Amino acid sequence: MAVYTHVSTEEMIAFLHRYDHGTLISAKGIAEGVENSNYLIETSDGRYILTLYEKRVNADELPFFCALTDHLANKGLNIPRMLGDRRGEQIQTLAGRPACLIEFLSGLSVTHPTPAQARAAGESLGDMHRALGDFRLSRGNSLDLAGWHELAERCGDDLDRIDAGLGARVGAELAWLDAHWPRDLPTSVIHADLFPDNVLMLGDEVSGVIDFYFACTDIRAWDVAVTHAAWSFENDGTGYHADLGSSLIAGYDRQFGLSTEERLAFPILARGACLRFLLTRAWDWLNTPADALVTRKDPLAFLRRLEFYAEADPETLVSI
Amino acid sequence: MAVYTHVSTEEMIAFLHRYDHGTLISAKGIAEGVENSNYLIETSDGRYILTLYEKRVNADELPFFCALTDHLANKGLNIPRMLGDRRGEQIQTLAGRPACLIEFLSGLSVTHPTPAQARAAGESLGDMHRALGDFRLSRGNSLDLAGWHELAERCGDDLDRIDAGLGARVGAELAWLDAHWPRDLPTSVIHADLFPDNVLMLGDEVSGVIDFYFACTDIRAWDVAVTHAAWSFENDGTGYHADLGSSLIAGYDRQFGLSTEERLAFPILARGACLRFLLTRAWDWLNTPADALVTRKDPLAFLRRLEFYAEADPETLVSI
Repeated sequence: MAVYTHVSTEEMIAFLHRYDHGTLISAKGIAEGVENSNYLIETSDGRYILTLYEKRVNADELPFFCALTDHLANKGLNIPRMLGDRRGEQIQTLAGRPACLIEFLSGLSVTHPTPAQARAAGESLGDMHRALGDFRLSRGNSLDLAGWHELAERCGDDLDRIDAGLGARVGAELAWLDAHWPRDLPTSVIHADLFPDNVLMLGDEVSGVIDFYFACTDIRAWDVAVTHAAWSFENDGTGYHADLGSSLIAGYDRQFGLSTEERLAFPILARGACLRFLLTRAWDWLNTPADALVTRKDPLAFLRRLEFYAEADPETLVSI
Repeated sequence: MAVYTHVSTEEMIAFLHRYDHGTLISAKGIAEGVENSNYLIETSDGRYILTLYEKRVNADELPFFCALTDHLANKGLNIPRMLGDRRGEQIQTLAGRPACLIEFLSGLSVTHPTPAQARAAGESLGDMHRALGDFRLSRGNSLDLAGWHELAERCGDDLDRIDAGLGARVGAELAWLDAHWPRDLPTSVIHADLFPDNVLMLGDEVSGVIDFYFACTDIRAWDVAVTHAAWSFENDGTGYHADLGSSLIAGYDRQFGLSTEERLAFPILARGACLRFLLTRAWDWLNTPADALVTRKDPLAFLRRLEFYAEADPETLVSI
């Protein structure tokens, strides 16, 4: 959530010369997305996002993200494309970093979604899953069950510095998920991070879905569970809002839908979703100085969600 | 250079309802300016900057900055206005902070100015000084010679942690400035921080001057000296570019001009300008954790400029 790599005006003007997208007239570093540097730029032709990829995104994987967003945009979804230069190149180098010029989409990220907005987000997720039915590339999920085990191990005893007993709770949850994780549900390329931050809305309509840098191949219904966990609670993980959860699922069902097997497994998938964000937040928490200017997100907000799903009946979450 | 106060989409939509400037369709936190939080927002009517004032700007002084930018904009200068709401109120409260909706101006801040750009910046400074001839408000400069003494004292022995001998050099310079600082040059409200960052350009034309939050009443020619020090060197303070310096002064002379007394005092004023930025950068350097996400600017870049001006003949800087 900062600009890590500074690009001078002169470098940016030269960069824009590679494209047929007009002359630069404004550029502002923006606080957005995962650990990339982003500029909102304006040219004589319109607005664009310029992204420089920092350490979290592997340059070798950019062609995957590029193909994925092209695939979705070609099917008419509101997904910002990585634009090609005059020679068709979508992935460039700028200020020593891999860089892409990306379409700008209007819209706002809601903080307190309404049921109508949760429904629209569910519909967008369904649209994406439907559109990805014939997408042939794949990318492993480094944050799957095996990845959570690794991350828990790397955090180690420090988990208890966040909250007494957290290490044991995580260990017990990993064991439970090992025993219950579904092995035969359909997989697909999924967004895997569809928080309200990554959905642009105008009123109750989705105007864009952004930030595909966690997209990977995994259980498709897990994406629904991630989205459910991200949209249906207060920010601190308290107060499940049944109206948001059910609207989200209704929207998804309208455009794509969950099978009975996926519905029965839903609480298990949701527990896995919560553990994934609990662990990445815990790692960031333990490795971010308290006085740094990036906001440390509370890992326990996802422990609270996890405990909710551990008690929940599938029927109350997704009608079966 | 970060967003310190987060404003939710819902709060921002409600805030925009106070104004006749359209419906919100996009908002991005931007990394810009002094220690304020800034959002670049887009409504159905156009683009705006939303600024929330953090600790460095005293809310009681906002009416001064408001009157100053109105005065300059009313005289036709490209200065972004703080916009009034439906009741004419320009200063609001948002997320517990004083906040203003401000005009957006296109343009880019150059990193390596050309002589033509330095000349245009000098002209803009001259235009401002001319326009401020009948501006009747005043604001003390807390970063004047007395302020530099205070700041040097607060930094104390820690100056030598930045560079061995820096404390003694600063002490000697303060004594020299006490003995030589001009006492009878004309004063005016001045910008006092006209770095390339604060000048928006389109090609060789100035499209906007921004960030008036250091504006104060002080020796008018000191503003020219600050601008000369800010525009005429490499970023690290080496390599005085005589063509940039002389173009800047020529531009200023064209629109307003320096008197003989001001020209003769120019190297002294420039030494004071360098000491002011040396000391504020030193203070920030000593009080910013090395791993923080804000860039610490090198105080020694202004010691190098200072040593240049200490050796320089007024004639080489400003023809007399």
